[in-house]
Amino acid sequence: MTDSLADFNAFRGRMNDIILNAGNLTISRFFALDHRCYEPGALGTKTKEMLGLVSSLVLRCDDCITYHIIRCHEEGVTDEELTEALNIGLLVGGSITIPYLRRAYKAWEELKERK
Amino acid sequence: MTDSLADFNAFRGRMNDIILNAGNLTISRFFALDHRCYEPGALGTKTKEMLGLVSSLVLRCDDCITYHIIRCHEEGVTDEELTEALNIGLLVGGSITIPYLRRAYKAWEELKERK
Amino acid sequence: MTDSLADFNAFRGRMNDIILNAGNLTISRFFALDHRCYEPGALGTKTKEMLGLVSSLVLRCDDCITYHIIRCHEEGVTDEELTEALNIGLLVGGSITIPYLRRAYKAWEELKERK
Amino acid sequence: MTDSLADFNAFRGRMNDIILNAGNLTISRFFALDHRCYEPGALGTKTKEMLGLVSSLVLRCDDCITYHIIRCHEEGVTDEELTEALNIGLLVGGSITIPYLRRAYKAWEELKERK
Amino acid sequence: MTDSLADFNAFRGRMNDIILNAGNLTISRFFALDHRCYEPGALGTKTKEMLGLVSSLVLRCDDCITYHIIRCHEEGVTDEELTEALNIGLLVGGSITIPYLRRAYKAWEELKERK
Amino acid sequence: MTDSLADFNAFRGRMNDIILNAGNLTISRFFALDHRCYEPGALGTKTKEMLGLVSSLVLRCDDCITYHIIRCHEEGVTDEELTEALNIGLLVGGSITIPYLRRAYKAWEELKERK
Repeated sequence: MTDSLADFNAFRGRMNDIILNAGNLTISRFFALDHRCYEPGALGTKTKEMLGLVSSLVLRCDDCITYHIIRCHEEGVTDEELTEALNIGLLVGGSITIPYLRRAYKAWEELKERK
Repeated sequence: MTDSLADFNAFRGRMNDIILNAGNLTISRFFALDHRCYEPGALGTKTKEMLGLVSSLVLRCDDCITYHIIRCHEEGVTDEELTEALNIGLLVGGSITIPYLRRAYKAWEELKERK
Repeated sequence: MTDSLADFNAFRGRMNDIILNAGNLTISRFFALDHRCYEPGALGTKTKEMLGLVSSLVLRCDDCITYHIIRCHEEGVTDEELTEALNIGLLVGGSITIPYLRRAYKAWEELKERK
Repeated sequence: MTDSLADFNAFRGRMNDIILNAGNLTISRFFALDHRCYEPGALGTKTKEMLGLVSSLVLRCDDCITYHIIRCHEEGVTDEELTEALNIGLLVGGSITIPYLRRAYKAWEELKERK
Repeated sequence: MTDSLADFNAFRGRMNDIILNAGNLTISRFFALDHRCYEPGALGTKTKEMLGLVSSLVLRCDDCITYHIIRCHEEGVTDEELTEALNIGLLVGGSITIPYLRRAYKAWEELKERK
Repeated sequence: MTDSLADFNAFRGRMNDIILNAGNLTISRFFALDHRCYEPGALGTKTKEMLGLVSSLVLRCDDCITYHIIRCHEEGVTDEELTEALNIGLLVGGSITIPYLRRAYKAWEELKERK
């Protein structure tokens, strides 16, 4: 994995540990629920990750987008599927999402080069 | 269709006509693009409508949620699929989305009673 | 309680039942966590309800504001405390919050008249 | 003025009085600043009201949009100017703004019928 | 142009090429519309760029703000006009916009030093 | 204070000077009001700073969060109080706030190491 995504994952892991070790049961349970809702059910994980990705795009959170871009890549989302999903986010959320779209494609490019 | 959804559709249709008749080419083209991005491609329309629905939930727009709830119903989304999709929106967007979730389920109930 | 707040509570209760009866475990647990995080701990419930109120004001959700206004009233928040808390929301969130502030004060007035 | 806009103005005036009479100096001063920033300076009031309108559209607040639509009408904004300004808000803010755009045009129609 | 703005433009150009080369017609057309809506019409480009700037400030997107700051500079917006426009964004959007306002002024300073 | 927080404060101070020296009376007064609303009144400054912190978390502004984290530390907020306050922001604002929560805890760790 390229450095920028590795750094992202390292910081994410380290701080999640600190937050979960703060000993607040509600926060720990929230993190568990947040993990659980992407598990396969009536909808597959691939569809759910695209739902998470597009939600993150319209709410414009770079780290959330990067996380779901990595997960979409792991779940085998194709270039065309990714573009169509992000396109819905762009139309719903407008041109204010374009800088986030650029960084989403940058992360996607890094993941593809690594393969 | 129950009265509240019929009223929604009537107002939506009437005002869209006024907006499109305002003669601004960029607005008309935006409306056309917004329609086009939900057409089937690498992703099916059913998946795309769920992407539109969850984006609308996290951005908390009642009319957009109602529109996509109607479209999801037309595309054959099941109760379980709807609930799993909305659940992702709830986790991503937090408890601030709960009032919108209530109204989403109310529209869904109306659509099912009508069938 | 005045009619508008009674209607609010009735719709809230009825739809919460429908959502919780949809049988999705993650949604039910989210609702439970959302309830739990306002229980007294290192911070008292009164402070926590004001935190929920101001968060709801800056995110501009009328139903969430109404809910926390009712809870603040039950917890004995005074007029002065309410105004200082809402003032922080107004400064943080800007003039776009003013219509929500008006409706917050309307609900507060209704609660005080009822007493 | 049509009933819906008259109702809007009546509620706005009544609640503003209650808020300003709550005796909090910071809130009163914020309301004064909010009024002051639309007064003519290097930019004219007409341009400033369009800035307020488009900000309100992308933040999706119906009451703020209605207020600035009324003010734009008073300042002599033309149909074409209004449409071009709202179009920028639509492109920046995306399709999630469309329901707000519909209600903006409805208020504009009411103002024009009244003239 | 100073390094930080040159870097901004280089990354923007490179990623836009990747996005437009992804071959999705709706995305390309959206980018074209987004460009088109700032062209002169009933409102001049200078006014339109200020509308884009203030929208970007209240939605708090640094890259969008930087882009419109550069465009406002090119269109001859004066210091006083810029400050009055940004002030409206500050009042509408509240103190949460202040960090973005700081970075807007930093970009503006860089553009003026370069002249 | 660690370097990252010192850099934050230095940039904040330098740009605030530039903004306040731009000579716009409304902006200066807004900054004064924004300072004033955290002064002790019916609510103490410690409670007010937690209100500012949670508002900043749900609106997802890193710099605002950092500022209020520093102020909460100065006002003697304990680890448990901080965690309970942030937990409310997490529940209200959803998983989209998690990256901001991580950076909030990082700043808190830096402040505690420095003590």
